Amino acid sequence: VKIQEIGEFALIQSLRDLVCQSVTSAGDITSELLLGIGDDAAAWYTTGTTELATTDTMVEGVHFRHEFTSWQDLGWKAMAVNVSDIAAMGGRPTFTLVTLGLRPETNVEDVHELYRGILSACREYNCYIAGGDIVRASSTFITIALIGVSDQSMLTRQMARPGDLVAVTGSLGCAAGGLRALAEGISLDGDSGDHLYQALVHPIPRVKAGQALVSHGIQAAMDISDGLVDDLSKMCVSSGVGAVIYADSVPVHPSLKDAFPQDYLSFALNGGDDYELLFAGREEIIFRAVAMLGSSATVLGRIVVEHPGKVEVLHENGYGVQPTAGGWDHFR
Amino acid sequence: VKIQEIGEFALIQSLRDLVCQSVTSAGDITSELLLGIGDDAAAWYTTGTTELATTDTMVEGVHFRHEFTSWQDLGWKAMAVNVSDIAAMGGRPTFTLVTLGLRPETNVEDVHELYRGILSACREYNCYIAGGDIVRASSTFITIALIGVSDQSMLTRQMARPGDLVAVTGSLGCAAGGLRALAEGISLDGDSGDHLYQALVHPIPRVKAGQALVSHGIQAAMDISDGLVDDLSKMCVSSGVGAVIYADSVPVHPSLKDAFPQDYLSFALNGGDDYELLFAGREEIIFRAVAMLGSSATVLGRIVVEHPGKVEVLHENGYGVQPTAGGWDHFR
Repeated sequence: VKIQEIGEFALIQSLRDLVCQSVTSAGDITSELLLGIGDDAAAWYTTGTTELATTDTMVEGVHFRHEFTSWQDLGWKAMAVNVSDIAAMGGRPTFTLVTLGLRPETNVEDVHELYRGILSACREYNCYIAGGDIVRASSTFITIALIGVSDQSMLTRQMARPGDLVAVTGSLGCAAGGLRALAEGISLDGDSGDHLYQALVHPIPRVKAGQALVSHGIQAAMDISDGLVDDLSKMCVSSGVGAVIYADSVPVHPSLKDAFPQDYLSFALNGGDDYELLFAGREEIIFRAVAMLGSSATVLGRIVVEHPGKVEVLHENGYGVQPTAGGWDHFR
Repeated sequence: VKIQEIGEFALIQSLRDLVCQSVTSAGDITSELLLGIGDDAAAWYTTGTTELATTDTMVEGVHFRHEFTSWQDLGWKAMAVNVSDIAAMGGRPTFTLVTLGLRPETNVEDVHELYRGILSACREYNCYIAGGDIVRASSTFITIALIGVSDQSMLTRQMARPGDLVAVTGSLGCAAGGLRALAEGISLDGDSGDHLYQALVHPIPRVKAGQALVSHGIQAAMDISDGLVDDLSKMCVSSGVGAVIYADSVPVHPSLKDAFPQDYLSFALNGGDDYELLFAGREEIIFRAVAMLGSSATVLGRIVVEHPGKVEVLHENGYGVQPTAGGWDHFR
């Protein structure tokens, strides 16, 4: 059986099973592990601290193309998507290891630009490059491993409960709109176009929002990288629940509606690459949290008792539409 | 200027400069950093603990070929080379993040074998897979990020002092001999051949030896991955010293002499992929440490006042030979 036949998520599930089955030894380190494979970041306990760790890789031709993104934006994004995983736990990033796979004919100045992008994200989110590795490769790839700290309790995917309201920060679908425009050669001139392009190449991880959610009593959250419906479904699987999304409540930026008057909702529901926070909690907590986050958060659905992972999208007339098979699976 | 023109190490140096120049912000995380880019692992201080972190990547066609190594051995080695970096700091590994770059047509069972190799190393060295990432790629790569803990003081590359003796664990050159034999189609049947092959595909990181060195007062150490002369030169650069190696003292396994009666010394001096520990210290400390490690450690040189990084290899007749330009630079 080949990976492309079963897809990324079945493969990960089978590897997770192998890890869990692996015989553990006497002086077992797992007693310190708080969260393993399956959340935005791993978490373990060290003396007095809960530490977080995540890793994300961007591969040329799969996650980016050099003609669509500058080296500096690439560096920013590679770091930002990892910072977003730490934000989704309610933590703050600390140290990072940067691995670059590079073609020998790559210009040194381009690598410096890449690093400048990485470093500008490090400055913005107060983390530091502690080490890394550089290897020769036939296409460019960037792997960031990011360590963080949770100063309070953690946000996890397992804590959504039936009756909870579901909300998100920011607006959704802009990055997917930007990508579609680039792929189809649609001009991104003007403010609207630039907004979509920036959403794609310069995502803003929600570190402060994540920490604020924790301090307001939210316990269930994740970041949206594979699309709202797909990621909400993952949260629902982890929590053993289902969810309903009210399509008309999904926050969409005017620039996206301008550029894609027909398709904006599909981008917002299934686009991906948003790096906004998706969170759930009891009504009174959600309303307080959303008020605190101001116009930058929106309630858009509810957690329900359902087959775990089932997410239904409801339109204004109440008619349930099956979400299109969305989300990213680069292997299928 | 292209990477292949300046090489891996000049590129790393220039990136390190960028990191150091990067403006630091008010709530600066660097105050907790103990060791950044340039040693076997990074180290930082968390409440009550010194934490270590390292990352190493193996790329198909650069660091391994599928026809020469099984998926399971590949998994072992990918983890072992990282564990070796933690061993070189005198620490012990704890948690790891595993990133796999895989072709879509890769067999799922092969990925499982890879994971079995990784997991067997995890069991052996008591560390745990806490997370990771799987991405589509045009050739296989494996990136391991490994976290560890230093329970005592650390071994670093900066602590070699003139007059120190230089010693290594184990014997050197077998992995390079194994690689040469595979590349030239020389049979590796029989015990000798198998020894060389195992040295190449199943290296044994020296975690216990590293911890023992710390407890015996050794402060300067690193692991040998790029070849004895090249790595000793790196330690010397970090410490601002030079070194002399007595060629006839370099420990060489009989299997390597058998297989390569002409070239064994060149493999031992410049071969790489050894994952033995190279360490330096005052005579009385080194002799005590070597005695404690038994037949598994050998004194082979001395640290001298010299141009930082200069390593001279002396043969029996006292004639200094300039080391061949050794070490691995995959970009040149």
